Amino acid sequence: MTPQFSPDFEKADGLVSAITVDAETGEVLMLAYMNEESFSLTLSTGRVHYFSRSRNQIWKKGESSGNMQELVEMRVDCDLDALLLRVCQTGPACHEGYRSCFFRSVAPDGTLKVIGERLLTPEEMYGGKK
Amino acid sequence: MTPQFSPDFEKADGLVSAITVDAETGEVLMLAYMNEESFSLTLSTGRVHYFSRSRNQIWKKGESSGNMQELVEMRVDCDLDALLLRVCQTGPACHEGYRSCFFRSVAPDGTLKVIGERLLTPEEMYGGKK
Repeated sequence: MTPQFSPDFEKADGLVSAITVDAETGEVLMLAYMNEESFSLTLSTGRVHYFSRSRNQIWKKGESSGNMQELVEMRVDCDLDALLLRVCQTGPACHEGYRSCFFRSVAPDGTLKVIGERLLTPEEMYGGKK
Repeated sequence: MTPQFSPDFEKADGLVSAITVDAETGEVLMLAYMNEESFSLTLSTGRVHYFSRSRNQIWKKGESSGNMQELVEMRVDCDLDALLLRVCQTGPACHEGYRSCFFRSVAPDGTLKVIGERLLTPEEMYGGKK
């Protein structure tokens, strides 16, 4: 199935930003990137696929950690170069074991404070493989 | 005031992504970018400043539309290259007059549907100047 709509990948140099939120609570879980193939795979399978810039390949979220993301709804922004994914997240979204990657608050004086919930240690998530 | 913490602007080629959400409802309003100066200005003034890639300059949100963003809390992600801004948003966040830039839903077959709330027309926001 070829989606009728496509983000403006050309303007975005092949990769659009994808903001992922918990469909139930609305909590922002992470920010990642999608190329055209990961966008199509996500829509056609209902499982979120990103494009890993560091590994330069399609990244099916949860393929190594087991912490999959089931797509509930996708939205697109006014400029057609950013996506919002409402998902059902299994376990932590963050590779550091926190529910959300945004687990630290920045105070006005620039100091950091951990405010997020750590569900697992990285060792528990990846079995020491990471 | 020089903030103690700084995102990893070097890794991010000078610009980090900033996801902006309504501090009360958690709704994702927009995605934009910050350079080091806009990051510092946002923390020191409490008013959100981005960096406009199209205009290649600091962009104080609401400077032309009046739709300012007051910073309630800033968070940073695990990789230190994305920010989450919880704000008090005056009026629409989107230049098209919608509360959120993510006002369209993408159906599994790839069709788009407007689901967002339009508060103003662009003409009402910019007085026909845009």
